[in-house]
Amino acid sequence: MLSEHYRQVRRHTLALAEPLSDEDCGAQSMTDASPVKWHLAHTTWFFETFILERLEADFVPFHTAFRVLFNSYYNGIGEKHPRAQRGLLTRPSMAEVRAYRSNVDARLVRLLAAASGQDGTGLQAELAPLVTLGLQHEQQHQELLLTDVKHLLAQNPLLPAYLAQPLQPPPAAPVLEWQAFEGGLCEIGHQGEGFCFDNELPRHRQYLAPFELATRLVSNGEYLAFIEAGGYRDASLWLAEGWDWVRSQQLAAPLYWRQDGQGQWHEFTLYGEQPLVPARPACHLSLFEADAYARWAGARLPTEAEWEYAAQRAGVAEPLQAMALHPRCAGEDGDRGSLLQMLGQGWQWTSSSYAAYPGFRTAAGALGEYNGKFMLNQYVLRGSSCATPAGHARISYRNFFPAGARWQFTAIRLARQSSAAV
Amino acid sequence: MLSEHYRQVRRHTLALAEPLSDEDCGAQSMTDASPVKWHLAHTTWFFETFILERLEADFVPFHTAFRVLFNSYYNGIGEKHPRAQRGLLTRPSMAEVRAYRSNVDARLVRLLAAASGQDGTGLQAELAPLVTLGLQHEQQHQELLLTDVKHLLAQNPLLPAYLAQPLQPPPAAPVLEWQAFEGGLCEIGHQGEGFCFDNELPRHRQYLAPFELATRLVSNGEYLAFIEAGGYRDASLWLAEGWDWVRSQQLAAPLYWRQDGQGQWHEFTLYGEQPLVPARPACHLSLFEADAYARWAGARLPTEAEWEYAAQRAGVAEPLQAMALHPRCAGEDGDRGSLLQMLGQGWQWTSSSYAAYPGFRTAAGALGEYNGKFMLNQYVLRGSSCATPAGHARISYRNFFPAGARWQFTAIRLARQSSAAV
Amino acid sequence: MLSEHYRQVRRHTLALAEPLSDEDCGAQSMTDASPVKWHLAHTTWFFETFILERLEADFVPFHTAFRVLFNSYYNGIGEKHPRAQRGLLTRPSMAEVRAYRSNVDARLVRLLAAASGQDGTGLQAELAPLVTLGLQHEQQHQELLLTDVKHLLAQNPLLPAYLAQPLQPPPAAPVLEWQAFEGGLCEIGHQGEGFCFDNELPRHRQYLAPFELATRLVSNGEYLAFIEAGGYRDASLWLAEGWDWVRSQQLAAPLYWRQDGQGQWHEFTLYGEQPLVPARPACHLSLFEADAYARWAGARLPTEAEWEYAAQRAGVAEPLQAMALHPRCAGEDGDRGSLLQMLGQGWQWTSSSYAAYPGFRTAAGALGEYNGKFMLNQYVLRGSSCATPAGHARISYRNFFPAGARWQFTAIRLARQSSAAV
Amino acid sequence: MLSEHYRQVRRHTLALAEPLSDEDCGAQSMTDASPVKWHLAHTTWFFETFILERLEADFVPFHTAFRVLFNSYYNGIGEKHPRAQRGLLTRPSMAEVRAYRSNVDARLVRLLAAASGQDGTGLQAELAPLVTLGLQHEQQHQELLLTDVKHLLAQNPLLPAYLAQPLQPPPAAPVLEWQAFEGGLCEIGHQGEGFCFDNELPRHRQYLAPFELATRLVSNGEYLAFIEAGGYRDASLWLAEGWDWVRSQQLAAPLYWRQDGQGQWHEFTLYGEQPLVPARPACHLSLFEADAYARWAGARLPTEAEWEYAAQRAGVAEPLQAMALHPRCAGEDGDRGSLLQMLGQGWQWTSSSYAAYPGFRTAAGALGEYNGKFMLNQYVLRGSSCATPAGHARISYRNFFPAGARWQFTAIRLARQSSAAV
Ligand SMILES: [Fe+3]
Ligand SMILES: [Fe+3]
Ligand SMILES: [Fe+3]
Ligand SMILES: [Fe+3]
Repeated sequence: MLSEHYRQVRRHTLALAEPLSDEDCGAQSMTDASPVKWHLAHTTWFFETFILERLEADFVPFHTAFRVLFNSYYNGIGEKHPRAQRGLLTRPSMAEVRAYRSNVDARLVRLLAAASGQDGTGLQAELAPLVTLGLQHEQQHQELLLTDVKHLLAQNPLLPAYLAQPLQPPPAAPVLEWQAFEGGLCEIGHQGEGFCFDNELPRHRQYLAPFELATRLVSNGEYLAFIEAGGYRDASLWLAEGWDWVRSQQLAAPLYWRQDGQGQWHEFTLYGEQPLVPARPACHLSLFEADAYARWAGARLPTEAEWEYAAQRAGVAEPLQAMALHPRCAGEDGDRGSLLQMLGQGWQWTSSSYAAYPGFRTAAGALGEYNGKFMLNQYVLRGSSCATPAGHARISYRNFFPAGARWQFTAIRLARQSSAAV
Repeated sequence: MLSEHYRQVRRHTLALAEPLSDEDCGAQSMTDASPVKWHLAHTTWFFETFILERLEADFVPFHTAFRVLFNSYYNGIGEKHPRAQRGLLTRPSMAEVRAYRSNVDARLVRLLAAASGQDGTGLQAELAPLVTLGLQHEQQHQELLLTDVKHLLAQNPLLPAYLAQPLQPPPAAPVLEWQAFEGGLCEIGHQGEGFCFDNELPRHRQYLAPFELATRLVSNGEYLAFIEAGGYRDASLWLAEGWDWVRSQQLAAPLYWRQDGQGQWHEFTLYGEQPLVPARPACHLSLFEADAYARWAGARLPTEAEWEYAAQRAGVAEPLQAMALHPRCAGEDGDRGSLLQMLGQGWQWTSSSYAAYPGFRTAAGALGEYNGKFMLNQYVLRGSSCATPAGHARISYRNFFPAGARWQFTAIRLARQSSAAV
Repeated sequence: MLSEHYRQVRRHTLALAEPLSDEDCGAQSMTDASPVKWHLAHTTWFFETFILERLEADFVPFHTAFRVLFNSYYNGIGEKHPRAQRGLLTRPSMAEVRAYRSNVDARLVRLLAAASGQDGTGLQAELAPLVTLGLQHEQQHQELLLTDVKHLLAQNPLLPAYLAQPLQPPPAAPVLEWQAFEGGLCEIGHQGEGFCFDNELPRHRQYLAPFELATRLVSNGEYLAFIEAGGYRDASLWLAEGWDWVRSQQLAAPLYWRQDGQGQWHEFTLYGEQPLVPARPACHLSLFEADAYARWAGARLPTEAEWEYAAQRAGVAEPLQAMALHPRCAGEDGDRGSLLQMLGQGWQWTSSSYAAYPGFRTAAGALGEYNGKFMLNQYVLRGSSCATPAGHARISYRNFFPAGARWQFTAIRLARQSSAAV
Repeated sequence: MLSEHYRQVRRHTLALAEPLSDEDCGAQSMTDASPVKWHLAHTTWFFETFILERLEADFVPFHTAFRVLFNSYYNGIGEKHPRAQRGLLTRPSMAEVRAYRSNVDARLVRLLAAASGQDGTGLQAELAPLVTLGLQHEQQHQELLLTDVKHLLAQNPLLPAYLAQPLQPPPAAPVLEWQAFEGGLCEIGHQGEGFCFDNELPRHRQYLAPFELATRLVSNGEYLAFIEAGGYRDASLWLAEGWDWVRSQQLAAPLYWRQDGQGQWHEFTLYGEQPLVPARPACHLSLFEADAYARWAGARLPTEAEWEYAAQRAGVAEPLQAMALHPRCAGEDGDRGSLLQMLGQGWQWTSSSYAAYPGFRTAAGALGEYNGKFMLNQYVLRGSSCATPAGHARISYRNFFPAGARWQFTAIRLARQSSAAV
């Protein structure tokens, strides 16, 4: 069963690379992004290094140099190939990386079989959680693979599409409404038997004042109104660091937006450049932009505790149609209820700095570096996006990025103090 | 009375500049620091711009260019002289800046007199809070003046002293003990009639799990043990960004520490370079270092809510001997009780990102830029330091700096989960 | 005939790309270097833009975007794709670039045929010099293709070989001797009917004092002696800017040299990493290193006039075995006579700044940008290298690079004042 | 006599600092420029280090730290205070630096007296050339002191004047004419008994083709025509590196020029900001600008050999009224003859890279670093400027700066191929 899930997740990663040439898979458009080939190899390295090296009898590495080449950031493992130079690794080739994947897959499946057999109980206890972590890790990289290749393609003046399909026009967006929540002493953090990352634990109490949450994400049309009202030119709307960011980079629109000579707006998507559709959610926004928009709109961003508590109350679930190549309009895919688009369209910036929950503990060894060491100068995003694989999202999930990051599918959910409370 | 307080605070700023030459007062050692002369002028600009310009009849500026030259960061006021070039303003001279201070003082005192006279009630209501804010602002700059000039003098190979006095050897430091706090639903934020900054409001509820706080700051001797144990060479102790910071700057000790050829440690102080005294509090530490030390010591940093709640419980008050040029040893100046050195020695890094309290509101106009726009990628420090003027500290006070800042008197107070709770 | 030469040169460029995968051809290891694919396309663009666009009836571009994508530095043509982002152009694919080459080749050959036919005399007069220039240009890029891909492969920790062949051990190097030249009023610059670049003209007089030139290039063994004598640690041997360069980059050996844990030296070559052979010429040296070595050796670098005048006298000619993947030992390939290795092994740094000859004139239009605008802060290299295609070298040839460039096959020829003159 | 000259030169340096406050003397506006105080100390250090340390019996340094603090670039002397941090040396104070000057002056004069007395012949032979070099060095710094303080004052929005005097309106500029020179085998380099720097030697032969030189410098009015014709927006006029420089810094006029809201041009001078006078020479120009202007004007820059040869022929001499604070108009101060403004107004960019003359030798020891190590990526300027002290200029003098330097009084003298020669 775990074995079957393993095969399925691993196959899906390869499927994501299928529309791309070997050349597409090798390039790195910025230090923050990685080549597709590197994602394919690194996720494999994760299984080889954290599982096979530990639990396989007579372990022999597929290639001794890969331990360094595909180590992302684990100092506990040792040396790392410099992040900014991942795009220079024209060797190993895509073919060799595919062979690496096959090799590790075969060994891993063999190990899983041994663990599920007689006398395998001890192995199983150690193996299963690691394989599960490896698959969750791989799913995270499935999303990154798409956002990274989108960034790469967007640098090319030919504006090539990842998939050359037309984007269907959506229905009109429903009116943005406000849903009130009482707050009080609540609990957040992961609960129950299922998988979660260490940073979602421990579940703990927080006190929340009454608040209200917008029923859907901010739309392109609404964000365009902010632009047209001079939002990018008014210092009073921005955090000091955000204002420096806007000015030094001379920004005037979200990443991937372009205004043509006739004044028409376009948006680069994985389907190529498309006319901007007002009803779709505004995305590829930094926290700076989300925060400035909220201030302009007379609202604010939610805290991560407010978001999670509201999601608990609203009975939020993954949309039926998971993992797409572009966020869909509110209500477009069966995502009904009082709070729309909480999952599956765009990650939602919160005002919460990424920090340890009270009593947070990291795993021993290099795996302890997975999340904990990044808890500084990053901000929490909640929900999930159109690029998140099906089954990966949770309402206790904590994504995090620096305030200026824009190449993920990042969006805006507004909050405000409860008007009843005044 | 406010008028007398005004004179006293303003005189004190000039007194701080007295040991320095005009040359000392003009130089700027880094973008983060300002010349002493600039502090003298900017604090005056604050009164002229936010009070006289608004409330003085027939207002004429002392010098039209000063509005731009001495504007620190208020976009609402207009243009600003570039921060990095404050050290190039050899004109106006120190003499002219002193004249500027005298002129504004005279006009301000005249305005205060008018407000306290008959028919002045309306003026008084508007004037008093602004003057109080201006004086609190000036006190903040009194502290910065000292830390900035310390940084400047430290760049000079001659290691000149601000005051050429010997530093008395302190008594031994008391043992570091742990005081337990129950937590629960508590309240933090400013309370009562006295002055506070906008970022200390509104007072609000937070839920705290049980925790323990160290009874004094980490000492030089303890921090030296961390260095000698290889703390600066062990990646597993550091946040990812902290490790990059340590490596790129090749750091191996706090700012102002120097090990001589014989292995002896010295510390540059405002009294010149001095042998490192183990009993004194370790200071001039970044959040990165404070966090790594805490991890090494099996502890953690407190949250700001924990710090403030503990201070409430422990009945913390300013030390008798306020504003010194170097932190004193625990217990050295009558600072007795269960929690030592909470105020008056070194600012204490917390793990809390600087963020708005629930319901936080900024003032209208340019004064709204005072605090709110900096609420990103900075971390809260609590307490106060040896360089904080008497009467300025409060247990609800929120100081904030980026994680890498070291030129303030920044120190470490350890916290840990309640052992009873396990 | 020109048509046959055209086919041959164009074919050779493709042959150079043959040992490489599409992935290898797409990557760019630094701003100074270009991807192999870009070289293939840009040389084609040169023919399309400067010849077909001008002379082809009913010209239609192969792809409208290519005019910008593959423009290297011609402001007269218009916009240019940013140089540092050439490695992000995963589209057009290698297959499309090959198709681009075929298309332009067919059209060019058709145009050549038309010109050589009846009524083609006028066309021929305009076409032939442009095609010749285009082919010389293509040959320059053949050399760059090899040095750029060498740089790319060297960044890969796997140290992949361009060709996986063993490098034959060479004979011992002949003793370095000095040949004396009288000097006086001499002439340099291109002479005769054959092709030359504009920067080799006009031929003009220069007065030269008597001097001596080394009979061969400095060898690896000799350069190693400089290293072992502390050459990289002695400021007095270096130009001020060279010393800053050595220190800021912490250099201690030529590019591509590596000393292993046992103290053995290795050299990365297009045949993979090889043990350093003392008899081979030292190469991949900056002007800084060449100058410091010469000073240490009690000699100096030649001026370009000295080099060309000596080459005239010595009757220098291309070696029999042209274009190799690594410089050969002195005398190894039939390169006999009094001055060895003048052509065909390594470009020789001169002390001459790259400047216009008296009376130099650039062509009208964008082609005038070919050479003239680079005549500043670059230094002339004379001779040619193992990577220079057969038939491309001339003794009046002026190559030029900034003083810190090392990724070309750059070597050292020593000169000194005539000892007779003392 | 040498003693009297010593006193006079040293006094003049102090006189130049007189209009400035201690604050003015301490600031450093960019890495290339030094504080006035540093100039005062460094020129003194030169005498103390290169003369007293060597020749004074029982030498004791004035202050041991000064050997490092005021070492500009002599690696042979040892450590140097970082150039970019000269403005942070608020200590030693101006008063201490004056005391340093007095102390060294007294010791130097004593040494000179001893050398001129009986038994002093040996000492005299060693001392006199060193003192002469020290005084020439001091005169170079007198010029730099003025250009550096001009740059500092120009950064101040108050635009303070070094001297608050009006600049007299000049007569109209004479027409720019061309003087033809035959060329042929000529000699350049210093000749005779008088002092020269090592880089002016040895005198040697060069062959020059016939050429013509403009009879005066390019005027403000002529340069303005270049600006108005779009010179700063036309890539075809610029060297590649110059075009990058113009674009990255968004330049559109010489340093210190400013166009007001009404379109009027002003020029910042040591007399404060003044209306731009068309007849005065254009100055504060980079080599990039000089070269682009020349190309636009259908001319070119002279080589240094052409300049010196022409100066020999034209019998050029220093103007009667030496060392002013701003360049004067052609003919304004008795500078009559066929070639005007060769000396005493603005340094004239040549197209010659700064390089060693054939047979050039540096002095042994640290003094060998005076000139030789800078012979790379710098260009020669000939003549002298309004800020050059009287008696310091020579027609064999070789000044040198990087192509982008603008803060010296740098101007344009045009040259062209001889029209007769066509
Ligand atoms: Fe990963
Ligand atoms: Fe302030
Ligand atoms: Fe080219
Ligand atoms: Fe000097």
